Amino acid sequence: MDLRAEVCRLHLELPRQGLVAWTSGNLSARVPDEDLMVIKASGIPFDALTPEAMVVCDLDGTLVEGDLSPSSDAATHGHVYRELRGVGGVCHTHSAYATAWAARGEAIPCVLTAMADEFGGEIPVGPFRLIGDAEIGRGIVETLRDHRSPAVLMRSHGVFTVGARAVDALKAAVMCEDVARTVHLARELGDPIQLESKDIDALYDRYQNVYGQR
Amino acid sequence: MDLRAEVCRLHLELPRQGLVAWTSGNLSARVPDEDLMVIKASGIPFDALTPEAMVVCDLDGTLVEGDLSPSSDAATHGHVYRELRGVGGVCHTHSAYATAWAARGEAIPCVLTAMADEFGGEIPVGPFRLIGDAEIGRGIVETLRDHRSPAVLMRSHGVFTVGARAVDALKAAVMCEDVARTVHLARELGDPIQLESKDIDALYDRYQNVYGQR
Amino acid sequence: MDLRAEVCRLHLELPRQGLVAWTSGNLSARVPDEDLMVIKASGIPFDALTPEAMVVCDLDGTLVEGDLSPSSDAATHGHVYRELRGVGGVCHTHSAYATAWAARGEAIPCVLTAMADEFGGEIPVGPFRLIGDAEIGRGIVETLRDHRSPAVLMRSHGVFTVGARAVDALKAAVMCEDVARTVHLARELGDPIQLESKDIDALYDRYQNVYGQR
Amino acid sequence: MDLRAEVCRLHLELPRQGLVAWTSGNLSARVPDEDLMVIKASGIPFDALTPEAMVVCDLDGTLVEGDLSPSSDAATHGHVYRELRGVGGVCHTHSAYATAWAARGEAIPCVLTAMADEFGGEIPVGPFRLIGDAEIGRGIVETLRDHRSPAVLMRSHGVFTVGARAVDALKAAVMCEDVARTVHLARELGDPIQLESKDIDALYDRYQNVYGQR
Repeated sequence: MDLRAEVCRLHLELPRQGLVAWTSGNLSARVPDEDLMVIKASGIPFDALTPEAMVVCDLDGTLVEGDLSPSSDAATHGHVYRELRGVGGVCHTHSAYATAWAARGEAIPCVLTAMADEFGGEIPVGPFRLIGDAEIGRGIVETLRDHRSPAVLMRSHGVFTVGARAVDALKAAVMCEDVARTVHLARELGDPIQLESKDIDALYDRYQNVYGQR
Repeated sequence: MDLRAEVCRLHLELPRQGLVAWTSGNLSARVPDEDLMVIKASGIPFDALTPEAMVVCDLDGTLVEGDLSPSSDAATHGHVYRELRGVGGVCHTHSAYATAWAARGEAIPCVLTAMADEFGGEIPVGPFRLIGDAEIGRGIVETLRDHRSPAVLMRSHGVFTVGARAVDALKAAVMCEDVARTVHLARELGDPIQLESKDIDALYDRYQNVYGQR
Repeated sequence: MDLRAEVCRLHLELPRQGLVAWTSGNLSARVPDEDLMVIKASGIPFDALTPEAMVVCDLDGTLVEGDLSPSSDAATHGHVYRELRGVGGVCHTHSAYATAWAARGEAIPCVLTAMADEFGGEIPVGPFRLIGDAEIGRGIVETLRDHRSPAVLMRSHGVFTVGARAVDALKAAVMCEDVARTVHLARELGDPIQLESKDIDALYDRYQNVYGQR
Repeated sequence: MDLRAEVCRLHLELPRQGLVAWTSGNLSARVPDEDLMVIKASGIPFDALTPEAMVVCDLDGTLVEGDLSPSSDAATHGHVYRELRGVGGVCHTHSAYATAWAARGEAIPCVLTAMADEFGGEIPVGPFRLIGDAEIGRGIVETLRDHRSPAVLMRSHGVFTVGARAVDALKAAVMCEDVARTVHLARELGDPIQLESKDIDALYDRYQNVYGQR
């Protein structure tokens, strides 16, 4: 299955982009037109990842295909796919700057044009949830429904991002850490200037509709 | 055209030097003796860059040669080439420390001999501008005309640098982030000592005229 | 002896993970069923490490096999193996964020779910001790006995971690620096939210018993 | 001349260790038993360095052998070799954390056992000096004569280190940035605990006399 190779390849970007330490962090892709997803097996080091370490689960997080136990975040990913039908990829990291905002329970304010482009406003904070079943997934979905942002900071935990494809969820995780860092640095020495709503709307609209290759 | 290969090669330095995330950031070169420039196509990942992903535009940012849409910053680069005839290269990044100063709308004070060498004084802040047409370009040119610095921090956005050649604009972007970081660190724990104007002038003059190979 | 190759391979992770500068930092493994350990020779640069630069010592830190002087931390490692019989690996670094907490003599509070998972609570501070004989080792053992954490911040010095195998001690050193950095960043801009004891217990229990491959 | 290859090889460590940006930073070695030194040519990018880009100068910084202009810091290095006869290598960087201390004109206090080991106390600040002739060199020598530290922070400028061999000067530059960073981080969140003089003396004495291979 090609999707396993793709999900494996995208996982390798997580350490390359400095978003994960040791075995933390994972990424999944929805299997098109099925209630299934491909996700990393639990506790596998990133430098040992092969397509065989990617397993197929249903949207409860139960193993359907593969020999290894799925990521302990599988039920969380599955809940997001069930509730948000347009989502084709989910990514989860404990990237340091974004998780520092999450540890304070503080949203990242929209003070950069690149944030307006990608996130259409602040990056919001979701509730504290213990891992298990769909608890974390429900917190993610409730928070994302009220925002344009494809990223949510789960309180005291880390980042979850969504996208139309797995690569889009990965991009959102990369950009989330990038803006979390820049806004952190800006705040260390004073107050970054808030952008006006109309400017955020104009930037978001242009970026979502004009940027890139058609 | 060799200039495409050169512009491609210089783009690869942007991620290597830690100045860009994902597809953000770009660099262009003026085509000698023509009102044309070579610039990156829009939204191409850095690890997929080839000379074919570099396109030729006129100074309005309109595609002249190549199959891909040009960077959404093309009109900005073009305006700079039109107004500043000695400029042969333009570079744009959202590098984190420099953009943090830009998010506060605060110039980087000249408190390092290396800043006096390269920038001849503070690195100034330009106005907030929405992307589109030559709006950003006008803000860049107005700000650079009043300073010796080849770098400007566009408010809430990021860095634009210029140089006689594209490699010089790249160097200015690297050095801008380097001094943005060092001065940020100095300010975190107290007040860096301001340099005197006469010392800045002496350092700038020596560096521009004596440093390097003749 | 295969253990030498394994200890050599794990040492190479220390610079790769950004935990050490120049020759600082070391890692050892207990020789199964013997009062011996394998440890790095003193003052060897990381890029010159070969299995031959790993030496065998008794638990006083005295050389038993090999031509090179053992690490000056050998007596420290040996004391830990003698007192903590379940420990099969010890790792020592001066990783920057964790050592910054150690320089203030301040424990890292448990404010991240990943900290609850790995450390089961705060990462404690051990006493200031001069190097020599078993002084540092006694401080490590006394501190670890009162905590679930496999990592201790020795005051004004650096990090020591333990694990069932050498790779587990290495993982604890990687995760210690990762959480030291994230909690540092969180504290720079305000107060991270404390986790409740019952939540820490639930997370620790699940991670130690359910996570990974069985 | 083998010394050129050695000095070239050590220069490549400067970007690898994150101590330099673009062409800044340099390193030299005294030619044994002659009033000559090998130093980098001016303004050569680090990824283009070959032994041919290393030139031989006398201790005034005047070119003796080679086709390229020597580093603009050559007279500084030469003055150090002339005044400090035990010095066989000099290294100069603008590494970010150390230069941040230099920008405030603030010595790095000795609050880490690794600092006591390597530097035997604080890392001192030297005077502000414009580049040219032996001005900077005199400031370095005057400051180092009063300290055990092989590193000095030249005010508003950067770091100079010395050693018995060029590799020792490089090591001092690496360790200087490492401790500058750790003490910076410690100070960001409070006050690191000062070490007592007798403990600093004991650590320095052991490290200089017992550490490493005999």
